[in-house]
Amino acid sequence: MERKKPEKEQVSEWYLKTCKDAELFDYGPVKGTIVFRPYGFAIWEQMQKVLDKMIKDSGHKNVCFPSLIPYSFLSKEKEHTEGFSPQCAVVTHAGGQELEEPLVVRPTSETIMYNSFSKWIQSWRDLPFKINQWANIVRWEMRPYPFLRTTEFLWQEGHTAHASLEDAEKEMKEVLGFYTKFFEEYLAIPVLVGRKTENEKFAGAIYTDSCEAMMIDGKALQIATVHNLGQKFAKVFDVRFQNESGEKELVWQTSWGLSTRAIGGLIMTHGDLKGLMFPPKIAPIQAVIVPIWKTDSEKKDVFKLSQKIYEELKDEDIRVELDKREQFTPGWKFNDWEFKGVPIRIEIGPKEVEQKKAIVARRDNGEKNAVKLDRLEKEIENVFEDIQKNLFEQAKDLLEKNIFEAKDMDEFSKILNDKKGFIKAYWCENLECEQGIREKTKATPRNIPFDEKLKPGKCVYCGKEAKVRPIWAKSY
Amino acid sequence: MERKKPEKEQVSEWYLKTCKDAELFDYGPVKGTIVFRPYGFAIWEQMQKVLDKMIKDSGHKNVCFPSLIPYSFLSKEKEHTEGFSPQCAVVTHAGGQELEEPLVVRPTSETIMYNSFSKWIQSWRDLPFKINQWANIVRWEMRPYPFLRTTEFLWQEGHTAHASLEDAEKEMKEVLGFYTKFFEEYLAIPVLVGRKTENEKFAGAIYTDSCEAMMIDGKALQIATVHNLGQKFAKVFDVRFQNESGEKELVWQTSWGLSTRAIGGLIMTHGDLKGLMFPPKIAPIQAVIVPIWKTDSEKKDVFKLSQKIYEELKDEDIRVELDKREQFTPGWKFNDWEFKGVPIRIEIGPKEVEQKKAIVARRDNGEKNAVKLDRLEKEIENVFEDIQKNLFEQAKDLLEKNIFEAKDMDEFSKILNDKKGFIKAYWCENLECEQGIREKTKATPRNIPFDEKLKPGKCVYCGKEAKVRPIWAKSY
Repeated sequence: MERKKPEKEQVSEWYLKTCKDAELFDYGPVKGTIVFRPYGFAIWEQMQKVLDKMIKDSGHKNVCFPSLIPYSFLSKEKEHTEGFSPQCAVVTHAGGQELEEPLVVRPTSETIMYNSFSKWIQSWRDLPFKINQWANIVRWEMRPYPFLRTTEFLWQEGHTAHASLEDAEKEMKEVLGFYTKFFEEYLAIPVLVGRKTENEKFAGAIYTDSCEAMMIDGKALQIATVHNLGQKFAKVFDVRFQNESGEKELVWQTSWGLSTRAIGGLIMTHGDLKGLMFPPKIAPIQAVIVPIWKTDSEKKDVFKLSQKIYEELKDEDIRVELDKREQFTPGWKFNDWEFKGVPIRIEIGPKEVEQKKAIVARRDNGEKNAVKLDRLEKEIENVFEDIQKNLFEQAKDLLEKNIFEAKDMDEFSKILNDKKGFIKAYWCENLECEQGIREKTKATPRNIPFDEKLKPGKCVYCGKEAKVRPIWAKSY
Repeated sequence: MERKKPEKEQVSEWYLKTCKDAELFDYGPVKGTIVFRPYGFAIWEQMQKVLDKMIKDSGHKNVCFPSLIPYSFLSKEKEHTEGFSPQCAVVTHAGGQELEEPLVVRPTSETIMYNSFSKWIQSWRDLPFKINQWANIVRWEMRPYPFLRTTEFLWQEGHTAHASLEDAEKEMKEVLGFYTKFFEEYLAIPVLVGRKTENEKFAGAIYTDSCEAMMIDGKALQIATVHNLGQKFAKVFDVRFQNESGEKELVWQTSWGLSTRAIGGLIMTHGDLKGLMFPPKIAPIQAVIVPIWKTDSEKKDVFKLSQKIYEELKDEDIRVELDKREQFTPGWKFNDWEFKGVPIRIEIGPKEVEQKKAIVARRDNGEKNAVKLDRLEKEIENVFEDIQKNLFEQAKDLLEKNIFEAKDMDEFSKILNDKKGFIKAYWCENLECEQGIREKTKATPRNIPFDEKLKPGKCVYCGKEAKVRPIWAKSY
């Protein structure tokens, strides 16, 4: 069964309604803020569990810094200030008094962290210094959109210091490696990894790399970023180490983050007209058991078997729910759980009790199979694997079929308007051309993919010689 | 070996130096804030893991609300406003503009949450409604003290709504039950559970229950609180449900919280003059392996065995470290890990390699035993259990030996000055007497213990008839 996706023009309406009705979020009282409701927050908890392990396994340790940062800290690095000041929420009063110095609610934590780094890092033995923080972040958002752009969001921010530029670059590769693994193997979202243009880099970085994903409407989502900060912050916060020869040197730094916008990315990659669809590896609820009965004696047997299966699956660490609600029909429940994107439904009726079987129904393709109880767990694991693979392949297929090449601006605009996908187009690396394209088409360079073997070409905008070919797209 | 505790007068100095030198925290740039460094934050992560499971197992679901709350929300409940307004940090500007309405950084989340409850709760079928949030909290602190009183701290806050007062009270009992279990079975901290006086209750509650612990200097620490909010917030936020007869009723609510001050409580309960001491069930590092060698060939064998043991213990989910540092002597490392409170040290030298043994040394009593490798894991589990029990018994012994009865204010003051413990003293329930005692002695009623079978007595302050006998103490 082919899944029906919303029309590209209707994705926005579909997304807002689906996320709201599935009780993933509600709007907060302050403009641009959202409340993560239990089902929505459970997605983030699953993501945290997977990613936190990757972060720790690669030698980073978790910390927690204050959310309130003196304004003077933010203003130490010029580009950083210019980038973030306009987005800041500013605390001017506290404890019933006006503060001598205003504080900003963290829009990111480079400044407050590196102020501490300068105290903690003394010697080459302290390097590499690798920490991570799970935190809430406030950036005033003019065009808020649930999960994707919210005034307050949740993220992890990794921050590292190294003895050399090479070590910092090695770190970035490692992080991009586990981010990619996180997106592709767990979220089933294929990502394009590459370098942001100078104009699109993080305010304060020497360059930024990103993972970009394609949403079902062909728009791009920057779903994670990794920054090479060089020695810019080290200089202004005086983060130095004594090298093995006893000389003082500035450290080389990276920072990187992945936020709750990944929840939005997940929904806009796998959802369909029936509702949400979660890949089993990240689904807050992986399987739901729906008991079906008519008479009281059927009910007793069906509930008994359902409960038994529920407990067995739980013991196997499967995230399973048993839907005992009596005010709804089985059909209503089927729709409800399909809408909520639960990968597998297990139906237990009198016939299943008699035959020692269970019906296993897949959310992704609607297939239903009667499975003998003694091989139910094994079958469920197999189906999870198959759904996971299927979702990734569908997303990869969408991505590959919607990347086009454009040689001139006519082609460029036509693709963007008619096909609504990503565009590979040569660019001469001049800011004027980048801005020209943006003004003309609203597309921006998402990133310049790594490891592309390219002949030089002509800039799609000005026709001059060009050595790079970014991916261009409209984006969230 | 008897452990030496700091003198009561020197606890404060000992505490600050130990926490700082063990790299649990550092001071933040804003007065009263602290940075949770990796080792300090790892304690909180262990606590979160244990408590989050208890919270979920009892049917609560995690959510995340914004940290920014409109000032008008806070001011809806009169007592709540009066209690929290003076402590608030206020955002007046954001996105480069002055805000029409100032926002407070959450000092607690009742108001913003119950604004949503009024939308989410419609019917008796929605009750009980039970959620929890792990969050950072800002309360301007005039006398900050690391972990115990900080301008910004971390906590969990549970919030529930019920169909009746009885259901709300049942919830409170359940929460006090798992809080007590958390403190006593995991943190090895005995707690006194009882009701706060009217004057000491949460601003906006009809009453508050608390868990109180005794620190090694005899001062009390309010280590968790559970509030019965009655229908006060339901009234101002209009949180109503349709009962089974179709009538609209206000819900009954509870809220409850446990914060990073528990880290301070842990240290001030189990620490000694050698440094920190963590109970195995909550220790971020439960065991450390220290290899000991002289020659290169010894080193090879010792490292090989150490690595093998490290991996085996890790596979058993023991939180173990292998200290391979070459710039320090074994003796230096022993001190370092004892200072950091790791419950068990495992020493591996050439003799142990030869005899297929390992030395297991306990942090709590200094005992050292050679253990055959094939029963090392079992032995470590046993020692963990024994240390856990031992620490709880030591803390319980301290608590029991330092609770005294006082019949008049002379006795009261004398106990407080000479013995520096907790005092059981009758009280007539008049605010004037409570305030009189506080002014005279700096002691406050910590709580009125549950389930005490008491004859009426005379108020320790005014001599009038009294039906309750609170625990009085100086407190953090």
